[in-house]
Amino acid sequence: MSDFSIGVDLGGTNLRIAAVSADGKLLDKISVSTRIALGPDYVVNDMCDAIQRLSSQHGANGALRGAGIGVPGIIDLEAGVVRMSANLPGWSGYPVRKEIEKRLGTPIFLENDGKVAALGEKWLGAAREVDNMAMLTLGTGIGGCMVFDAKIFHGLNGMAGEFGHVTIDPEGIPCNCGNRGCSERYASGSAVLRMAREAIDGGDAPALAHASEDPSFSAKSVYELAVKGDPPAQRIFCSFGRSLGILLAGLINILNVEMFVIGGGVSSAWDAFAPTMFKEIRERSTVYAQTVRVNPEQSEKEVRISETKRNPGETIITRAVLGSDAGLYGGAKLALG
Amino acid sequence: MSDFSIGVDLGGTNLRIAAVSADGKLLDKISVSTRIALGPDYVVNDMCDAIQRLSSQHGANGALRGAGIGVPGIIDLEAGVVRMSANLPGWSGYPVRKEIEKRLGTPIFLENDGKVAALGEKWLGAAREVDNMAMLTLGTGIGGCMVFDAKIFHGLNGMAGEFGHVTIDPEGIPCNCGNRGCSERYASGSAVLRMAREAIDGGDAPALAHASEDPSFSAKSVYELAVKGDPPAQRIFCSFGRSLGILLAGLINILNVEMFVIGGGVSSAWDAFAPTMFKEIRERSTVYAQTVRVNPEQSEKEVRISETKRNPGETIITRAVLGSDAGLYGGAKLALG
Repeated sequence: MSDFSIGVDLGGTNLRIAAVSADGKLLDKISVSTRIALGPDYVVNDMCDAIQRLSSQHGANGALRGAGIGVPGIIDLEAGVVRMSANLPGWSGYPVRKEIEKRLGTPIFLENDGKVAALGEKWLGAAREVDNMAMLTLGTGIGGCMVFDAKIFHGLNGMAGEFGHVTIDPEGIPCNCGNRGCSERYASGSAVLRMAREAIDGGDAPALAHASEDPSFSAKSVYELAVKGDPPAQRIFCSFGRSLGILLAGLINILNVEMFVIGGGVSSAWDAFAPTMFKEIRERSTVYAQTVRVNPEQSEKEVRISETKRNPGETIITRAVLGSDAGLYGGAKLALG
Repeated sequence: MSDFSIGVDLGGTNLRIAAVSADGKLLDKISVSTRIALGPDYVVNDMCDAIQRLSSQHGANGALRGAGIGVPGIIDLEAGVVRMSANLPGWSGYPVRKEIEKRLGTPIFLENDGKVAALGEKWLGAAREVDNMAMLTLGTGIGGCMVFDAKIFHGLNGMAGEFGHVTIDPEGIPCNCGNRGCSERYASGSAVLRMAREAIDGGDAPALAHASEDPSFSAKSVYELAVKGDPPAQRIFCSFGRSLGILLAGLINILNVEMFVIGGGVSSAWDAFAPTMFKEIRERSTVYAQTVRVNPEQSEKEVRISETKRNPGETIITRAVLGSDAGLYGGAKLALG
């Protein structure tokens, strides 16, 4: 007998739903396409069907405590409404929570998907042993979330954690947000592609130029070339690491939390960007320098230490471990409280 | 009948002690020189004498709940010991809390002085109506503190709030901390003096050059020239405001707290630096732009709005109001819990 809850990852492409026991075991997982073109009513129907299916399968073993839904966009937490979502057209103002609660009669929690993933990493992932952490999700842009005392820190308007729009170069590249030199112009998937394009245009990156003829050319393609030893591709990830290091050094000086977790698709390129990232952090964060006891000669070893173990009082910078399941666990945790 | 507590501001020059009632009234205040040359035992003696004097004067009206002491330096909060203080030579490792508790038999709380001042502004000053705030103390450098849910946020090692060492220009001026381009190289009292020296050396700042012949030449002298309309002095504070704006824009994007309070001696130059500071914040913080509803034409008015009133959901940037008494109130609040 164990109570359980439902975690939902409502993406623009896939709708993923999982039943998770109160002690953090994944009981079951369903994935369907998000029928985005049919509008929110249909998608909510699909979601309710899946939740009910999981609920009846596992209801014999314990009580359903509710469901937590991660949504890509800005959420009105009090109202349980999507305020703005680039990936879910037509959802602005749609009363998601009310609609689902009406149909299922169970408590529903709505939250930004990046913040849900951070809560998942806090509960069962990389940060499970710390109370205070920040997570950076490296995707097309940079998502961010702080968890203090094991709770998501929302700030005044639910906008805390906009790490991607912190200025790291005051005269830098213009950003859609209106600023120049935002961190996500330099350390995200789109930044990798921009740097690749610049290298190709410079005429000095034949392997990148060749790879870019493939229609599926992506940040991952650049990473694969870097792993194979292509210098232009390696330089891109060195620059990426330096920029991410500047951002992280600032965050460490400001927050001094136990752990910084790096997640998102582009975090797979860790080996390529981590050395310059750690170098920059060591040089730029007085708090890091005072809290991490490593031999400055041993940068590679430091990467390993940070990944695997924790000394008391030490700032840890490490990779996320739950991958795309972080959102499912985090959603379930929202409902478990 | 009202309980009370004692707030102590242990400076390198002055030792200030106040009795404050539990409802926030300043009952009495003593100021003596810090007999720093005689060592911690003597200073602690002076402090205990003053606390006992205030305690016996006000003890008939209510119970003494304890004393909170603000110290310029890094504090070991658990041990109640000064770990490092540039202004209190010979105090490293001295068991301040234990010594005072032994003599007075009342609970003693030790805390960094900048953090105590922030707690004072939260309790009775500019931030008294908000739960989450950050304070920037502009002095020789930039001190910082975050208060979440009305409690000082210390981070893992008590080092949270090192706003002065956040990089605002990656290729900028070297800093003693080992980094380059730290915010306090551009927006502090020492930054004002550096910029004044550079303007004088450039040969194009006759009024500054003249003023600098006075041995008491300081950041305040530069401000006074700016107020009188001297263009080189005004340019210094415009640059100061831009740099502070870059730092604040990042902090707003990261923290999204209700209020940012600007204190410290150099905050007196508010009129000279606030216009460029707000301009930079508006351009650089997507969170600010989305939370503050002002006519972009009315930057001067915005300064006034921010100083005087608060709309729900709006990010406020404002000046500290308690001046040097913030530390006394904050110290007293530490002991009141």
